[in-house]
Amino acid sequence: MITSQTQNGLFSVIAAELSAVEDCLREPVRDSGALLSTVASYALGSGGKRIRPALLLLAARACGADQGGRLVTLASVTEMMHVATLVHDDIVDHSTKRRGQPSAAALWGSDVSVLAGDFLFSRAIQILVADGDMRILRAFADAIVSMITGEGLQLQLLRDLTISEADYLKIITGKTAALMSAAARVGALVADASQDMIEAAAAFGLNLGIGFQLVDDALDYTAREERLGKPVENDFREGKITYPLIQLMRTASVADRAMVEDLARREQLGDEDLAGLRALVERYKGVAATMELVDHYLGQARVLLQVVPESPACHALYRLLDFVRHRDC
Amino acid sequence: MITSQTQNGLFSVIAAELSAVEDCLREPVRDSGALLSTVASYALGSGGKRIRPALLLLAARACGADQGGRLVTLASVTEMMHVATLVHDDIVDHSTKRRGQPSAAALWGSDVSVLAGDFLFSRAIQILVADGDMRILRAFADAIVSMITGEGLQLQLLRDLTISEADYLKIITGKTAALMSAAARVGALVADASQDMIEAAAAFGLNLGIGFQLVDDALDYTAREERLGKPVENDFREGKITYPLIQLMRTASVADRAMVEDLARREQLGDEDLAGLRALVERYKGVAATMELVDHYLGQARVLLQVVPESPACHALYRLLDFVRHRDC
Repeated sequence: MITSQTQNGLFSVIAAELSAVEDCLREPVRDSGALLSTVASYALGSGGKRIRPALLLLAARACGADQGGRLVTLASVTEMMHVATLVHDDIVDHSTKRRGQPSAAALWGSDVSVLAGDFLFSRAIQILVADGDMRILRAFADAIVSMITGEGLQLQLLRDLTISEADYLKIITGKTAALMSAAARVGALVADASQDMIEAAAAFGLNLGIGFQLVDDALDYTAREERLGKPVENDFREGKITYPLIQLMRTASVADRAMVEDLARREQLGDEDLAGLRALVERYKGVAATMELVDHYLGQARVLLQVVPESPACHALYRLLDFVRHRDC
Repeated sequence: MITSQTQNGLFSVIAAELSAVEDCLREPVRDSGALLSTVASYALGSGGKRIRPALLLLAARACGADQGGRLVTLASVTEMMHVATLVHDDIVDHSTKRRGQPSAAALWGSDVSVLAGDFLFSRAIQILVADGDMRILRAFADAIVSMITGEGLQLQLLRDLTISEADYLKIITGKTAALMSAAARVGALVADASQDMIEAAAAFGLNLGIGFQLVDDALDYTAREERLGKPVENDFREGKITYPLIQLMRTASVADRAMVEDLARREQLGDEDLAGLRALVERYKGVAATMELVDHYLGQARVLLQVVPESPACHALYRLLDFVRHRDC
């Protein structure tokens, strides 16, 4: 399991805090017998990699914060917000699977899932208000707006094979990198870091997040379903035109482009169609080009780490970059 | 049109501010060409009664606040949050009409609507963060959590004819009264009112809101579709067991209760079925009992108003109570 691997190995320096985050995630939505609590707990408990909480905790410690209850609370809020968007995304994308398990939307229907996502969002805001730091509220509020507008742009440009690289980057920066950036920023804020350090942490999170999503988009064309816990070539099926395909469309022959355009117009795609698409992505080095871009963004993140004093947390952040680069699921 | 009637008559004392609210509602979601902005603008612009912004403005002025840009901003936020929940509710309830117009979900689909509601929510939070008063953020965050949990309980108890009066009141307090209470509280907060006055304002909003929703639930059994802008007997069709029906179920004969139970089990309801239900609600004085409860809550609100010094805003709040009591749509 990736969860135990990441938590025991990669994040060993914050293992105790991450375990406290798991406890914390059971608290804010507990209300025995209430439907929304059941659904929210299911979504929170379905075993993500907890990268956002880890990032917040590591950024805080790398900036010199003592670990404490407040950081665990804020790390949990980061995950609640992430999971809230996943619950809504599964409605938007009509996804029936999430991390190898049925999605909340598949189990309870989209009506219940809309409210369960809202519940997670609003409880997260309530916890931040109780924490009482306006700078932290601002970081998260800005991140949520970016996430939603990123998702909105993605929906707007669905099936658009002429999507520009700039729009694609805007989408993934919004939907994935913004919250990672907020997580790292909040870690630095709690550590009372200098303004420069806070901005460096936020930029680290942003670059890490862009790299993370690019790898995700590459894996969709290379991974195997059993490993990924969700169908592969799923992005194309859902109409999401990601970097491997952008690369394909700007380098392919007229005939090959026409073939992709034909596939994009189809209502149903068979296994052969998808195998053909995968072969085209490979021929035009769609995944290799994506990984080059990954290296660019993770490289930027690596440079930003150089201003941080040596520490176990700092080393863990370097290892996090390697993990994001080389993960296969 | 109710909008012009309420704004020109009932709310004439704050007509200028309400007009500024309309302008303000066009601002925060403006982003030419972005799909979510289009949908959010449509939902915001579809002519509600703007009771929540009016309540905030009147409470502020009744507590001695100068009207100003800040109040207009906060009044707009109240409406944004209200409309965000409407957009999501229309997904939850599978409603195709809202105020006589197609719902956002009907026009753009539930996928786009999920994000459009999230967009309104998150922009509202962002504006509150920019305003920078943690007490106001707390009031709204608490209200949103109450709204969502109220909606969740409603969904959980759908089609449950044995729903208790206590659970029904919990639902309407959450889904409707909590935000009205927050609106009045925020008005008093901005006016720098005493703690007693702030709590009185919040209690006024809460009682007004409960009365408002009870009238809504009564109108569903008495109004005509052309006037209401949405189908009547809609609550029963959607499985919502409201006060008129609770009254019916606790006073009806065994045979009549069995008839309602039979109707509640049906997948499809014809006009005759609904006419029969309406007749039963009338026979057992379901609407009259609801209006008695309305008078109780609006009476409580009226008592709370007595601590407020005489002023045009105070008079407008009395008239608001009368409006809520006697509205027919």
